[in-house]
Amino acid sequence: MEQAIVTYLSENREKHLNELKEFLAIPSISSLPEHKEDVQKAAQWMANSLTGIGMEKVEIHQTKGHPVVTGEWLKAEGSPTVLIYGHYDVQPVDPLHLWDSPPFEAEIRNEKIYARGSSDDKGQVFMHVKALQAILETTGTLPINVKFLIEGEEEVGSPNLPSFVEEHKEKLSSDLIVISDTSMMERGKPTICYGLRGLCGVQIDVKGPSSDLHSGLYGGTIHNPIHALVEIVNSFHNEKGQITVDGFYDKVQELSADEKEAYNALGIKDESFIKQLGVPEMYGEEGYTTLERTWVRPTLDVNGIYGGFQGEGIKTVIPSEAHAKITCRLVPDQDPDEIAALLQEHVKAHTPPGVTVNVSLFDKGAPFVTPFDHPAIQAAGRAYEKVYNVPTSYTRGGGSIPIVATFDQILEKPVVLMGFGLPDENFHAPNEHFHLENFDKGMETLCHYWYELEESL
Amino acid sequence: MEQAIVTYLSENREKHLNELKEFLAIPSISSLPEHKEDVQKAAQWMANSLTGIGMEKVEIHQTKGHPVVTGEWLKAEGSPTVLIYGHYDVQPVDPLHLWDSPPFEAEIRNEKIYARGSSDDKGQVFMHVKALQAILETTGTLPINVKFLIEGEEEVGSPNLPSFVEEHKEKLSSDLIVISDTSMMERGKPTICYGLRGLCGVQIDVKGPSSDLHSGLYGGTIHNPIHALVEIVNSFHNEKGQITVDGFYDKVQELSADEKEAYNALGIKDESFIKQLGVPEMYGEEGYTTLERTWVRPTLDVNGIYGGFQGEGIKTVIPSEAHAKITCRLVPDQDPDEIAALLQEHVKAHTPPGVTVNVSLFDKGAPFVTPFDHPAIQAAGRAYEKVYNVPTSYTRGGGSIPIVATFDQILEKPVVLMGFGLPDENFHAPNEHFHLENFDKGMETLCHYWYELEESL
Repeated sequence: MEQAIVTYLSENREKHLNELKEFLAIPSISSLPEHKEDVQKAAQWMANSLTGIGMEKVEIHQTKGHPVVTGEWLKAEGSPTVLIYGHYDVQPVDPLHLWDSPPFEAEIRNEKIYARGSSDDKGQVFMHVKALQAILETTGTLPINVKFLIEGEEEVGSPNLPSFVEEHKEKLSSDLIVISDTSMMERGKPTICYGLRGLCGVQIDVKGPSSDLHSGLYGGTIHNPIHALVEIVNSFHNEKGQITVDGFYDKVQELSADEKEAYNALGIKDESFIKQLGVPEMYGEEGYTTLERTWVRPTLDVNGIYGGFQGEGIKTVIPSEAHAKITCRLVPDQDPDEIAALLQEHVKAHTPPGVTVNVSLFDKGAPFVTPFDHPAIQAAGRAYEKVYNVPTSYTRGGGSIPIVATFDQILEKPVVLMGFGLPDENFHAPNEHFHLENFDKGMETLCHYWYELEESL
Repeated sequence: MEQAIVTYLSENREKHLNELKEFLAIPSISSLPEHKEDVQKAAQWMANSLTGIGMEKVEIHQTKGHPVVTGEWLKAEGSPTVLIYGHYDVQPVDPLHLWDSPPFEAEIRNEKIYARGSSDDKGQVFMHVKALQAILETTGTLPINVKFLIEGEEEVGSPNLPSFVEEHKEKLSSDLIVISDTSMMERGKPTICYGLRGLCGVQIDVKGPSSDLHSGLYGGTIHNPIHALVEIVNSFHNEKGQITVDGFYDKVQELSADEKEAYNALGIKDESFIKQLGVPEMYGEEGYTTLERTWVRPTLDVNGIYGGFQGEGIKTVIPSEAHAKITCRLVPDQDPDEIAALLQEHVKAHTPPGVTVNVSLFDKGAPFVTPFDHPAIQAAGRAYEKVYNVPTSYTRGGGSIPIVATFDQILEKPVVLMGFGLPDENFHAPNEHFHLENFDKGMETLCHYWYELEESL
């Protein structure tokens, strides 16, 4: 990669920051109807920006909700094609009084830019545009082909994106998908998250007597729905912290020795978690470290349980019903629908006498992993290392990013998450900001990545 | 017993009912501050009534709340002394629009008197007064000595009665205590409830991380407080429906063969419960019938459980806390404080790693039983049979009447519950009423009882 590209980025820094401030000034809050026009304005700004750097076929696609912006540059014959995903919509800003500067008037303090969307995700989308511009203006071409897919509904769960991707499958076809909407592990520590867990959310409803009963008059004569629910919920785990649902682990990929080593090398200690979370000790499936349990092992968690009296003091009631909300985090190659069916069978087999039980599926998302040693992942790692001068960390995430699973399943191409945010940048909270160190180094990293990719794929 | 007493009651029926209507017209709702004066008025009415029939030392004792009325007649030298307990306060009347006639304007329809307090408990207290008057006016004396203790705070949990009884222990001393504030099993079926269960109410609070956590990021790494609570709660019972708390059953009196036979003779079938309660089947401790499980076996019931998300859909949270409210129903000779301590030890022994747990005692009441074959119980049974011409049913109750335990513990004398209400008389609800059949037969039964007692004790 030519040094001139780096020089270009550095010479145009002021100009870029001013453009970013313009983008950040548009209050494109996708969840609030009163900002519908602002979201449209941000889509237009995005489209103009893409056209401005030389992208072709730039389009604003209206959906049932907010628009999707696409554009492409496909002149690098024989080179790989990258689909870049990001979003131009932002979270609401309440409570406003906790912001030290207005959320839509970006302000730079201590080499951080403060504004809603600065880190999540306008800042990171903007970096992609400017990195490509730097290469184009310096070299007159690009080492790879690129396609942009920038949506306006990420903060409301991307309701219209899956069908858009399905309909435009051909148009969006690529060799890999790059998403910059996540965080590095910590400052100065470049990180590639190459796997995320999936999700299967169910609700268990236990029904006993037709109405609440007096526990003095009926206690001991019928099955208390809370007891029945507790029996069922307790049956999900054994004393080793393992999930006892038949077949639950059947499709779980075991951790490779390489990955195990890489995780241990991160040097993350339980003590820091214990202190941060305020628990007496860590707890979970035997035989796995905390990181392994977060990244590569599936879980079953009760997110809510309720039945009967919750007020002050006591009320001697046997409730008519009791409920539990449960989510399983899934890992490759578990299938959310299969897991939901296994849960239903398990509950059926463990339903005690005297009550009726219903299990309903509430939400699902597939797990995702791009193999750790995939050339697109390794190329990204090298790109980071050239700029940050430290080894790249390869991590997986415990949570789910539904859109990643969507890409994985519909487009069937590797997804590379190159996040430039930092964990303490207050996305979704007051005083969201973005470290300019990662703004600068991130754009340089992206430029390196495109050249690395050209050579690797 | 002289037939003249029965004749007296029958000749004065109209007069008695009019007096009762006067008593029922006083809206002595103890829970509503705006009725404080009405409660005083009812106490005064009660005192006048006692004085009117020849009771002596009639007093209205002010307390921190509503007053207690006492009076006595102690001229039956060598005969047993009976303490008669009842209450002149009533429940609120909301929702008023559901009453078919005004709650404080008693109306007789179909041989039932409709008014708040008609069954619970003004009607039954009034019967005691008039039965004694009938004997006194007919024979000039009484076969027994009597003391009255009529309170005005029963419907608000008798907060001041235990200390009143403790302070006036000597004044209230007697050979037995008679309470008419319960129901017969059904119409035409005289019933003596000779035992009630006690109560031990605790709350379990499980504390995990210092704040709610994202179940994607932390699921599987710490002990979910809901899971920990479920483990603890599930440990309270085994698959036979038995309570597994060490020492829980140690002081439980086993059911005698006589009692077992008497309960079976009641001919109560599970089918009728199943239909009434809307459950698929009855459930409980193995080896005992439904009635036995209600009356003579202790229970442990979760009355409420809560933790985490309860709204629509799912929220992927690991809550910081989870809670359960539990009441044990206790039988003789279990001690509520001892049981609370056993529960605390059990929870301590079953607390899983990764959480802290607190158990607090919320409420307690001792169980009570007057032996089934006690002469005072058997005499009451014979009195009923003389009037109703069917065998008396001897039952126990699954619930708790705190004041009964108070008498049992402070005065240490047998308590006889002679209830003349019927289960469908809407106490605490709109259209409370009292069957005049039991008004007439009840007074006659009471008269017989005093003569039976004189001969038995």
